[in-house]
Amino acid sequence: MLAGADSFIKEITREAGDATLKRFGKDGVHYTKSERIWDVVTKADLLSEKILVSRIKKQYPRHGIISEESGSHNPGEEYVWVIDPIDGTLNFASGTPLYGVMVCLVHDSEVMLSAIHIPATGEFFFAKAGKGAYLNGKRIYCSSRKDVGKTFGTGSTSFSPRSTHFFGKLLKAGKGDQMMYGSFGSMANNACYTAAGRRDWMVALNGSIWDFAPVSLILKEAGCKITNMKGEPWKFGMLEMVAANPVLHRKLLVLTKDV
Amino acid sequence: MLAGADSFIKEITREAGDATLKRFGKDGVHYTKSERIWDVVTKADLLSEKILVSRIKKQYPRHGIISEESGSHNPGEEYVWVIDPIDGTLNFASGTPLYGVMVCLVHDSEVMLSAIHIPATGEFFFAKAGKGAYLNGKRIYCSSRKDVGKTFGTGSTSFSPRSTHFFGKLLKAGKGDQMMYGSFGSMANNACYTAAGRRDWMVALNGSIWDFAPVSLILKEAGCKITNMKGEPWKFGMLEMVAANPVLHRKLLVLTKDV
Repeated sequence: MLAGADSFIKEITREAGDATLKRFGKDGVHYTKSERIWDVVTKADLLSEKILVSRIKKQYPRHGIISEESGSHNPGEEYVWVIDPIDGTLNFASGTPLYGVMVCLVHDSEVMLSAIHIPATGEFFFAKAGKGAYLNGKRIYCSSRKDVGKTFGTGSTSFSPRSTHFFGKLLKAGKGDQMMYGSFGSMANNACYTAAGRRDWMVALNGSIWDFAPVSLILKEAGCKITNMKGEPWKFGMLEMVAANPVLHRKLLVLTKDV
Repeated sequence: MLAGADSFIKEITREAGDATLKRFGKDGVHYTKSERIWDVVTKADLLSEKILVSRIKKQYPRHGIISEESGSHNPGEEYVWVIDPIDGTLNFASGTPLYGVMVCLVHDSEVMLSAIHIPATGEFFFAKAGKGAYLNGKRIYCSSRKDVGKTFGTGSTSFSPRSTHFFGKLLKAGKGDQMMYGSFGSMANNACYTAAGRRDWMVALNGSIWDFAPVSLILKEAGCKITNMKGEPWKFGMLEMVAANPVLHRKLLVLTKDV
């Protein structure tokens, strides 16, 4: 691995998160990218991206960068940085303290390092391939609950046709049971809180490469099995994810495999 | 109204919230009240309740008290304090920073004052009948979105038969649309964040008197219309709630009236 990249990714993600926090509760929506209510951009998104992209370009001028607001630079390089300058922008813009700055380093299509800063709650998540996942420096582990009917899940927020299909199956499976479901409205929170065992599983069906790549390593290193809806191992580029401890994951696949 | 009660309710709710925050991330589940995964009690629930009940008994010895963990004392009195020492205990016990200490003062079955402290995010909500709702001293208002298909709602988390019925109708109404739904896993956060316009509506079908009474005034004073599922004005004692701006509320009733 790249020497010094561990501390570099932590440093820039913390810096960008701190910069967004200074604008939190002040920035409203700057512009919208489509008619969809969640497709918004604030000035803080642009500021965070500017910090991250300029730091990476200076430190690693030959690396590729894929970033939400400014697109891709050399995404075919051996090393590629994937950036979500603010994940959960709708939360951010409305003053809801659940959003994250997410950065990961991908080497030959494998996520090697990931840092997610949730500044409004003071939570900093970090993972290194093969070395575990951490919250504020302390090792975290996914939930060990195994009875799907007694779990608290999280994931998709919007009613896309596929997520609606999944929710329908979930309602049928969970009806009258002790199941719970709740989305925080940000992938950063949904995934990191699942990695920390605060929720038992995540099923996410909507998002882009910068939503999925950074959270994948945090979840995996916390002990989650991560796959697509069919149960195939999650790979860089997949835009869906089922994450849970391996026993629970197998049971969830019954609900997701035909979604 | 009772002279001095405004500052008293703020003071004790802040004190209890601060006490829970000291234990946040340390207290796990102390005991469970039933087999349901969310029916848990931590030592912090008991501590918060002890602070609130002892302060109220000392200040207003003749008032009634209804509290989650220790039950009722003179609930037929003219003035009754309703307490949820920790709302969102499952979040609290798992280290999720979304829980609240909720207290309200009821006079002849009307909620007159309400204070909700969400200590892990530093948010203090307060409302006084006829005088508005406030977050950290600043007036808050509910969302003004009117197109139900382009809203972000919140509310029930668990799959009770009635909430499953509602979710089924919601999925049908929202399918392929720009609707979003997400529960924070605590009534305090669901309701206060709706009152602050961070979510557009709340439909809550599960809970006890100490869940609904404190949030009712915050929502109402933020401009929400609050009713039961049928659309009848919400009254102290009702254990269900539809909350939204009046135009959106009328549209939501189509989905809730037969639930």
